[in-house]
Amino acid sequence: MNNFLKNKKPQIIDLNFARIDTWRRERRGFPEIIYSSGKTIKQLIKIITAFKKYEDTILLSRLSYSQYKVLKKAFPTLKYFKLARIGFLGKKVYKKKGNVLVITAGTADIPVAEEAAVFLELTGNNVERIYDVGASGIHRLEPFKEKIQNAKVIIVVAGMEAALLSIVSGLTKAAVIGVPTSFGYGASFGGLGALLGMLNCCSLGTVVVNIDGGLVAGYFADLINR
Amino acid sequence: MNNFLKNKKPQIIDLNFARIDTWRRERRGFPEIIYSSGKTIKQLIKIITAFKKYEDTILLSRLSYSQYKVLKKAFPTLKYFKLARIGFLGKKVYKKKGNVLVITAGTADIPVAEEAAVFLELTGNNVERIYDVGASGIHRLEPFKEKIQNAKVIIVVAGMEAALLSIVSGLTKAAVIGVPTSFGYGASFGGLGALLGMLNCCSLGTVVVNIDGGLVAGYFADLINR
Amino acid sequence: MNNFLKNKKPQIIDLNFARIDTWRRERRGFPEIIYSSGKTIKQLIKIITAFKKYEDTILLSRLSYSQYKVLKKAFPTLKYFKLARIGFLGKKVYKKKGNVLVITAGTADIPVAEEAAVFLELTGNNVERIYDVGASGIHRLEPFKEKIQNAKVIIVVAGMEAALLSIVSGLTKAAVIGVPTSFGYGASFGGLGALLGMLNCCSLGTVVVNIDGGLVAGYFADLINR
Amino acid sequence: MNNFLKNKKPQIIDLNFARIDTWRRERRGFPEIIYSSGKTIKQLIKIITAFKKYEDTILLSRLSYSQYKVLKKAFPTLKYFKLARIGFLGKKVYKKKGNVLVITAGTADIPVAEEAAVFLELTGNNVERIYDVGASGIHRLEPFKEKIQNAKVIIVVAGMEAALLSIVSGLTKAAVIGVPTSFGYGASFGGLGALLGMLNCCSLGTVVVNIDGGLVAGYFADLINR
Amino acid sequence: MNNFLKNKKPQIIDLNFARIDTWRRERRGFPEIIYSSGKTIKQLIKIITAFKKYEDTILLSRLSYSQYKVLKKAFPTLKYFKLARIGFLGKKVYKKKGNVLVITAGTADIPVAEEAAVFLELTGNNVERIYDVGASGIHRLEPFKEKIQNAKVIIVVAGMEAALLSIVSGLTKAAVIGVPTSFGYGASFGGLGALLGMLNCCSLGTVVVNIDGGLVAGYFADLINR
Amino acid sequence: MNNFLKNKKPQIIDLNFARIDTWRRERRGFPEIIYSSGKTIKQLIKIITAFKKYEDTILLSRLSYSQYKVLKKAFPTLKYFKLARIGFLGKKVYKKKGNVLVITAGTADIPVAEEAAVFLELTGNNVERIYDVGASGIHRLEPFKEKIQNAKVIIVVAGMEAALLSIVSGLTKAAVIGVPTSFGYGASFGGLGALLGMLNCCSLGTVVVNIDGGLVAGYFADLINR
Amino acid sequence: MNNFLKNKKPQIIDLNFARIDTWRRERRGFPEIIYSSGKTIKQLIKIITAFKKYEDTILLSRLSYSQYKVLKKAFPTLKYFKLARIGFLGKKVYKKKGNVLVITAGTADIPVAEEAAVFLELTGNNVERIYDVGASGIHRLEPFKEKIQNAKVIIVVAGMEAALLSIVSGLTKAAVIGVPTSFGYGASFGGLGALLGMLNCCSLGTVVVNIDGGLVAGYFADLINR
Amino acid sequence: MNNFLKNKKPQIIDLNFARIDTWRRERRGFPEIIYSSGKTIKQLIKIITAFKKYEDTILLSRLSYSQYKVLKKAFPTLKYFKLARIGFLGKKVYKKKGNVLVITAGTADIPVAEEAAVFLELTGNNVERIYDVGASGIHRLEPFKEKIQNAKVIIVVAGMEAALLSIVSGLTKAAVIGVPTSFGYGASFGGLGALLGMLNCCSLGTVVVNIDGGLVAGYFADLINR
Repeated sequence: MNNFLKNKKPQIIDLNFARIDTWRRERRGFPEIIYSSGKTIKQLIKIITAFKKYEDTILLSRLSYSQYKVLKKAFPTLKYFKLARIGFLGKKVYKKKGNVLVITAGTADIPVAEEAAVFLELTGNNVERIYDVGASGIHRLEPFKEKIQNAKVIIVVAGMEAALLSIVSGLTKAAVIGVPTSFGYGASFGGLGALLGMLNCCSLGTVVVNIDGGLVAGYFADLINR
Repeated sequence: MNNFLKNKKPQIIDLNFARIDTWRRERRGFPEIIYSSGKTIKQLIKIITAFKKYEDTILLSRLSYSQYKVLKKAFPTLKYFKLARIGFLGKKVYKKKGNVLVITAGTADIPVAEEAAVFLELTGNNVERIYDVGASGIHRLEPFKEKIQNAKVIIVVAGMEAALLSIVSGLTKAAVIGVPTSFGYGASFGGLGALLGMLNCCSLGTVVVNIDGGLVAGYFADLINR
Repeated sequence: MNNFLKNKKPQIIDLNFARIDTWRRERRGFPEIIYSSGKTIKQLIKIITAFKKYEDTILLSRLSYSQYKVLKKAFPTLKYFKLARIGFLGKKVYKKKGNVLVITAGTADIPVAEEAAVFLELTGNNVERIYDVGASGIHRLEPFKEKIQNAKVIIVVAGMEAALLSIVSGLTKAAVIGVPTSFGYGASFGGLGALLGMLNCCSLGTVVVNIDGGLVAGYFADLINR
Repeated sequence: MNNFLKNKKPQIIDLNFARIDTWRRERRGFPEIIYSSGKTIKQLIKIITAFKKYEDTILLSRLSYSQYKVLKKAFPTLKYFKLARIGFLGKKVYKKKGNVLVITAGTADIPVAEEAAVFLELTGNNVERIYDVGASGIHRLEPFKEKIQNAKVIIVVAGMEAALLSIVSGLTKAAVIGVPTSFGYGASFGGLGALLGMLNCCSLGTVVVNIDGGLVAGYFADLINR
Repeated sequence: MNNFLKNKKPQIIDLNFARIDTWRRERRGFPEIIYSSGKTIKQLIKIITAFKKYEDTILLSRLSYSQYKVLKKAFPTLKYFKLARIGFLGKKVYKKKGNVLVITAGTADIPVAEEAAVFLELTGNNVERIYDVGASGIHRLEPFKEKIQNAKVIIVVAGMEAALLSIVSGLTKAAVIGVPTSFGYGASFGGLGALLGMLNCCSLGTVVVNIDGGLVAGYFADLINR
Repeated sequence: MNNFLKNKKPQIIDLNFARIDTWRRERRGFPEIIYSSGKTIKQLIKIITAFKKYEDTILLSRLSYSQYKVLKKAFPTLKYFKLARIGFLGKKVYKKKGNVLVITAGTADIPVAEEAAVFLELTGNNVERIYDVGASGIHRLEPFKEKIQNAKVIIVVAGMEAALLSIVSGLTKAAVIGVPTSFGYGASFGGLGALLGMLNCCSLGTVVVNIDGGLVAGYFADLINR
Repeated sequence: MNNFLKNKKPQIIDLNFARIDTWRRERRGFPEIIYSSGKTIKQLIKIITAFKKYEDTILLSRLSYSQYKVLKKAFPTLKYFKLARIGFLGKKVYKKKGNVLVITAGTADIPVAEEAAVFLELTGNNVERIYDVGASGIHRLEPFKEKIQNAKVIIVVAGMEAALLSIVSGLTKAAVIGVPTSFGYGASFGGLGALLGMLNCCSLGTVVVNIDGGLVAGYFADLINR
Repeated sequence: MNNFLKNKKPQIIDLNFARIDTWRRERRGFPEIIYSSGKTIKQLIKIITAFKKYEDTILLSRLSYSQYKVLKKAFPTLKYFKLARIGFLGKKVYKKKGNVLVITAGTADIPVAEEAAVFLELTGNNVERIYDVGASGIHRLEPFKEKIQNAKVIIVVAGMEAALLSIVSGLTKAAVIGVPTSFGYGASFGGLGALLGMLNCCSLGTVVVNIDGGLVAGYFADLINR
């Protein structure tokens, strides 16, 4: 391929209200993911119907349960991961790539963590979940110390002060991805506190994604493991 | 005393540009502290001269070294604590009140910590300093675990993500006071990141003071120990 | 105990979606408090059932009245403090520790104040409430001047400009804890105004907790009184 | 005058880089004030020279001492008020209008207060200064209670938490104008904390001007007194 | 009166959840105003019932229509001003004090303006309303130029960019009070844009109150007119 | 016309709660647009009825579908553009002015884009829509490169990081107007992220309007094309 | 040209530390402008020397006077516009395109305005400057009303509350571009106040560029006039 | 190793003002990096001298040129990378790990990029620099398209709107790390604009580090390549 913008038709499906990038898998290694929040059922059905002609793997993110229930009638093989708000058409990959640990500080952070974990499982990664280990009792990490030390990639999902990122990163050689969450009250200001906390993390070996960006973290972890 | 506002002259020394509260010690347990930043040498000399007639203990906070050098000529017994930027006239108290631990995350946080520590020593507290224990290597706390567990009050001074507050608090029954510092770069935004991190601390048993508020923390710790 | 992280099983109850810290009472002086907001009834029942095997005192914070009504059926001895949104299983402590004053600026601040006051009563503190004394009429504080001067700890709960913290602190030797509230309109910006007001408090002897952090303040006041 | 925009030449002196509003006195009751910060000496001389043909009262605000020293040579009758950073050509008015109290919380707030006070004196108001009465010792207000209760207008200048505005307003029938100052450290964030504190003031009878806006407050107080 | 805090019982009615300041009228010239938002009907009835023994003028601010409808049954003489959200018990004052102009930029700003206007009318001021004169067509001000030039006090209520404050102030000798409103979209950020716009107003003779603070502005305008 | 503020009656229709600027078309080239959000049906009917006597083209912006359905009964010729939330009375202009491209980054940005596009069509511009071309796959722009290079004006509507503005502007001689949208999650902070992204755009040839300001952009594009 | 990214060498001069876009004039209508702030003299000389082989018009923005004085030795024909901080090699264009008005609110805004005006003159536009017309005296606009009404494009440069943008736009059919400036004090917060004021401008027909973005506005005005 | 916190002396060198983590290499794969900004020469010499007994590789970050010149006398083998502000004692690693591309949007971003690049070279990575490819001319990326498509990791360093991150990520399967820089003016607000832009990046496969966090990005890239 000697021109990264040359026109190999059909690279795009033009639905007028949406343009589906059918060239994405070749160029980026994974087909376009359909962000479902704010789209009507009608729009989603049109997109999936058109996309299915080119792709056998379709992933719908931020898909609400009520959207899913209607879509399920049109696409009976549609799988749904409720906590993760992910819809999936196609076959799970069974590659058993490297280990990814997905850790949350609290119970409320689990939906964001699941968005990462489910994506990683669907793309063939070996995922282990460690939920609700907080920062106010680091001995809760103790039973997992070997897993933490041996992981290739760790995703830390935390709201409020997000101190867990620094603690986990300080114990491991793994690449650690922080996901701030919007859960909390008072000076958490919709996740701003957790975001600044993670960006200011003094422990080298960490990066940050958008607030509540579970999918963003999962996608990046899969990239490292490819 | 049956009226907290009754007029027992002279409760105030009126210097026109400043009003010194000579009733402070009786009412609040410690004489007024002179905030020196932004005051001229002339103003400071007038204040100290007038105040000395009523008080034998005068503490000057945020006193720069250059201010000190000039004042020293007028008040030869003036002691100076350089890192803490504290000037002191009078006698140190030797009460040996309860233990206070002053902990910093980094080396750059030391001046703020010293402001707390020096104040606490001058008021008769038993202070122990533990500096530069970071958050990226919690084993650095290991040698101090018994001190942390046995302290009555702990002051944690930290900038950037300030995760140390959560970690220390999670290990102890002590009352833990967080002091965010303005040291750092990027998204630390002059201490805002550390401030939000400490306010959002999930570990119960912690409170927060103003950014760089070493004296505020020291004063409060002394209150607990009285 | 010579290693603060050594593994004395069972220090943690692992419920998969939650990890309960059964070691908390020994280490920190009070059992883990269950933050109930955002948890399902199913999750709360699982947590309480498991926790009850190790603890006879279980405190649920931010428990809504509707959550309480369902839980009450499963745990008939569950007590509920409606304004404070606190659920409680176990026996109140009757230690009569030192006095704590809980003061609010307005009527709207009372629920946050109650969260502190109820916690303090349950843990055996002698609590006195002084509500709606505002900042715009400081004579409303007059009848309480002796209580203010004799208290060991005072909690000041206030929204909007939060000036009450400075005023109260200026009258007393007590340790004063400020709780900014999110109540208000306009430039109160969800409690940010009150938070900055309290952090910038010029009166030494004060500390601050998170916006609406009634429990955080109550817990810290109890620590001082232990 | 039956058209507020009709062209009565010369209402404007056009200096190319500046347009002086010679119609201001008639329309607004006071001639245009020359904001001097950021203007070159050359520009100031041109402005004053041109303006003097139409006005015998010229007030220069935010005039630095070094600007003044050079201008003094060109305009020997120029008076200068150093703390207030005000330059003045013309005659002081001796009208003895109503009383205005100018109060500051701290010593550092005095320059902003002087900007208001000097303006008010130059325009014939009866000004009384009460400086450094803080918020952490309200008894410092005690000696002035009658002045506070009898004033027509009060200007309160304060940084940090700015609680003094609420306290003073709660004691008086006077119209109270708050001036937040940028002096302070930490979470004062260049005056933002004081600004929000004053805007959120729960005591009716108060208004606010820009941070460090001493002249703005003085001008408004004079308007009330006219 | 020689002590502004001396105890002339009963200066306060203590209802436990609320403290009513019965001394307010003497001290500040107007009885305490009951902020009704967030208070239960039960609380409001208790407050009014207790207050009526000492005061014949009771004003309830931020009273919703549904609150009013219930209260009306208990207090049949209660008057209600729907747009202004003000409830009123007592007699309107007919003093015909000086003129106050209440001007809004848009239609959406009217409820905030009415809060000011109704308060001013109830306290005997001569109020004139000029609504929806915008900033994008200053000729809409033309028919009112004489009113603007002859007013003693003008209240300008505006959201979005709030430029109307500068324009009106530039045309008059009146004291001009700006009220930023939270109405708008996009970068109005809940009134922050209008607030900053009004604080930065270059035209001397203006002050600002809290976002949506119609009552605050009305109260202050009445103070000037007393 | 020799006085831009002279009074040519009737330039304003005064409805008490609203002042309609009937002079707008002559002065600014397009009649006043009625911002409908927050106005009652009653108010809208009064405004339209009064305005129709002077204007045959009436455009209602931010008109909700439910408002429209009621208004339609009173004004049967009222046209409605649902996505654009625009109501329209009068005749579309068929001038076929210069080409305007309206481009969106995502599907969720379409309603804002439609507000611009519909306005431009109603005022006789030749509009072409290119929706959902994202920034994560710039080859989606490929099929439109000639349109982009030949346009006179381009409107780019985008939320989140809004990078599309820089990319499009870098490819063309056209004047490019950026419209940040409030759509998104996490650190998009209600459109602030997109707004800052567009303001900081390094590519010369771009300007920005308010968040979600589709009409503002459309109006400006029409101005260029007149 | 049938591929907007096809490689027509040499479209880029690669200097390792900088890549000069020699294809810019063809693609965008004006050669690349060299942003000089932060570049060393050495880097600037290398860039100019390399660029001169392909371009006879080189414009350097944000060029300090001290940078200019050194560069002048290497490039004797370099012209410099001190207020505008623009350096220029080449010939001014004498096209006399449409009129552009450049208006400032204050004297301090002139350097930003000059950046726009000089660029527009160099590119052959007919520029008229109207400086220091403020918002606090709109009659200062009176002498220019016909120019304002007849202009094709107007650039309004203003700091603080930036109300001038709304006023000017309300008087004209011209396309009006707002440039907020960082000049000011207090709540101007480095231009944020002016920026929000301009973005929230209710008058249709306006757009905004970055704070202090004189060149950005000038460039866009030229685009409209091409 | 069966306890990640067990005490294997000497894991820490205690210098009182600093605690050096000699266990870091074993635990995290790279020795502790000395953050030099704000440290005195004396402190740096003490740290290096003590550290050298345990480590043969010592990296000093944020080391100023003037600090370096003094340290060079004490440690003659100290190497210095001026743009990157990195000091280095020890031997460069020659492992030739996977390729890392370091791309900057502008020339001003180069120092931050060099911090990443130099670190990566010192740790044996194969680094390629592509500087000043901007976002306003994406054809500047054209010559590097194969490198972009074949890289394992790409670091994108950009200020202002930071759109380059989305563009580069959209073209590649590589893991892309964004580094926002504080360079810029106006609404870049010290890097906040670039930070939000990068966090909101819609292209999956990207993560973000702190503003100006070149070392953080370099360290993470090396982790992926290990």
